[in-house]
Amino acid sequence: MSEFVQSLDRGLAVIRAFDAEHPALTLSDVARITGLTRAAARRFLLTLVELGYVRTDGKLFSLRPRILELGFSYLSALTLPEVAQPHMEKLVATVHESCSMSVLDDEDVVYVARVPTKRIMTVSITVGTRFPAYATAMGRVLLAAQPRERLDGYLRDVRLKPLTRATITDPAVLRATLSEVGAQGWALVDQELEEGLRSVAVPVHGADGHVVAAVNVSAHANRGNATTVLEDLLPHLRATAKLIEEDLLTPA
Amino acid sequence: MSEFVQSLDRGLAVIRAFDAEHPALTLSDVARITGLTRAAARRFLLTLVELGYVRTDGKLFSLRPRILELGFSYLSALTLPEVAQPHMEKLVATVHESCSMSVLDDEDVVYVARVPTKRIMTVSITVGTRFPAYATAMGRVLLAAQPRERLDGYLRDVRLKPLTRATITDPAVLRATLSEVGAQGWALVDQELEEGLRSVAVPVHGADGHVVAAVNVSAHANRGNATTVLEDLLPHLRATAKLIEEDLLTPA
Repeated sequence: MSEFVQSLDRGLAVIRAFDAEHPALTLSDVARITGLTRAAARRFLLTLVELGYVRTDGKLFSLRPRILELGFSYLSALTLPEVAQPHMEKLVATVHESCSMSVLDDEDVVYVARVPTKRIMTVSITVGTRFPAYATAMGRVLLAAQPRERLDGYLRDVRLKPLTRATITDPAVLRATLSEVGAQGWALVDQELEEGLRSVAVPVHGADGHVVAAVNVSAHANRGNATTVLEDLLPHLRATAKLIEEDLLTPA
Repeated sequence: MSEFVQSLDRGLAVIRAFDAEHPALTLSDVARITGLTRAAARRFLLTLVELGYVRTDGKLFSLRPRILELGFSYLSALTLPEVAQPHMEKLVATVHESCSMSVLDDEDVVYVARVPTKRIMTVSITVGTRFPAYATAMGRVLLAAQPRERLDGYLRDVRLKPLTRATITDPAVLRATLSEVGAQGWALVDQELEEGLRSVAVPVHGADGHVVAAVNVSAHANRGNATTVLEDLLPHLRATAKLIEEDLLTPA
């Protein structure tokens, strides 16, 4: 594409170079991570400093809070997380497990709301975290709600990587599973994304009846087995989704 | 600055053109909001479409969830919101008012965590929201903790705009107020940011004893008066800040 603005692409790559494991980077780090020359990395970093998105002590660079305004212009336009959050909080207070909400973006689920319980796992999931849809309960709920053609395209193109020993990697098995998820209205994923993690998810329908998001509850594998997870958590999760859907019908 | 990358600045301005009131924009809208020519706006939008940050139906453009990865690279590096969130949730469950956490960024407070209660106000505050520090309780707590020199610079440069009839607009009065806030360890702001909104805030200290953030509880003015807000909410808020500080001392 001749009109592609390469400088924008590269500047955004510099922003993405910073993450939870690398909150502070030298110029050389940024050049290495982004594949830019040091001179180019320096120009982008200094531009971001000038714009108030990056701070530096002359050696180390790190993101400044202003960077949040980029992602949050999207989030603040979504009423969904705001509507869902109070209901998700009540659910977490009841079941003492973390609750999340996500939407589908290409082949990934992206978290748009999250109410963590006390941290027992080192996994750090925040709003904005992405996981491959096929290996998550929320992803399966969202995939199951896709029009037939989109689902066919997804199953044709996706690479089903074994993230654990349990991950479904056969597209035909995944298709059958998604059928079942669509019919029963919930998905349970048992340690397919990560060992020791089970998750159950249900869809959230918008005012027009379409699935607009999924909500889940995830539990450490030391909480009983898959059956007890379903028995303990699914009824509460369904009730929460219903309350969210009711609120979506009656905007404040 | 000769090395300034204007294309990055302009591309980020295109992202910021989208907000809660304008989640979907035409090419003309984006050109108008950013001050770019239509041709330039088109190049930036199509680049963002190509990068997966923007979607379009050919006429309207809107942000895609992937945009969250930009702001959240900052947020996921902060352990503070993650540590604070469970304590903030308990506070909200107890006092039935919204609780937020923010940090100082230049002259503004920026929200890094928020637990809303049931919406009674139309004000939509999310993580990433910015307010001028001088007119908020969290901002005053954070300003009061600044080194003398930085505070002097702030008071010299800041423009104290009257956001309501009650906003303090005299730098000398603000300085005296900040002294008091520093001495007493809390700030109360009574309808200085917005009519009908009261907020009380306290500092959160990191392991090294420095103030790393502020937490607040905000209440609609129909909940008693400033004194009852203090009596009802401050003790709970202080207890919450203490629990957060204890967790910051003992990382998981």
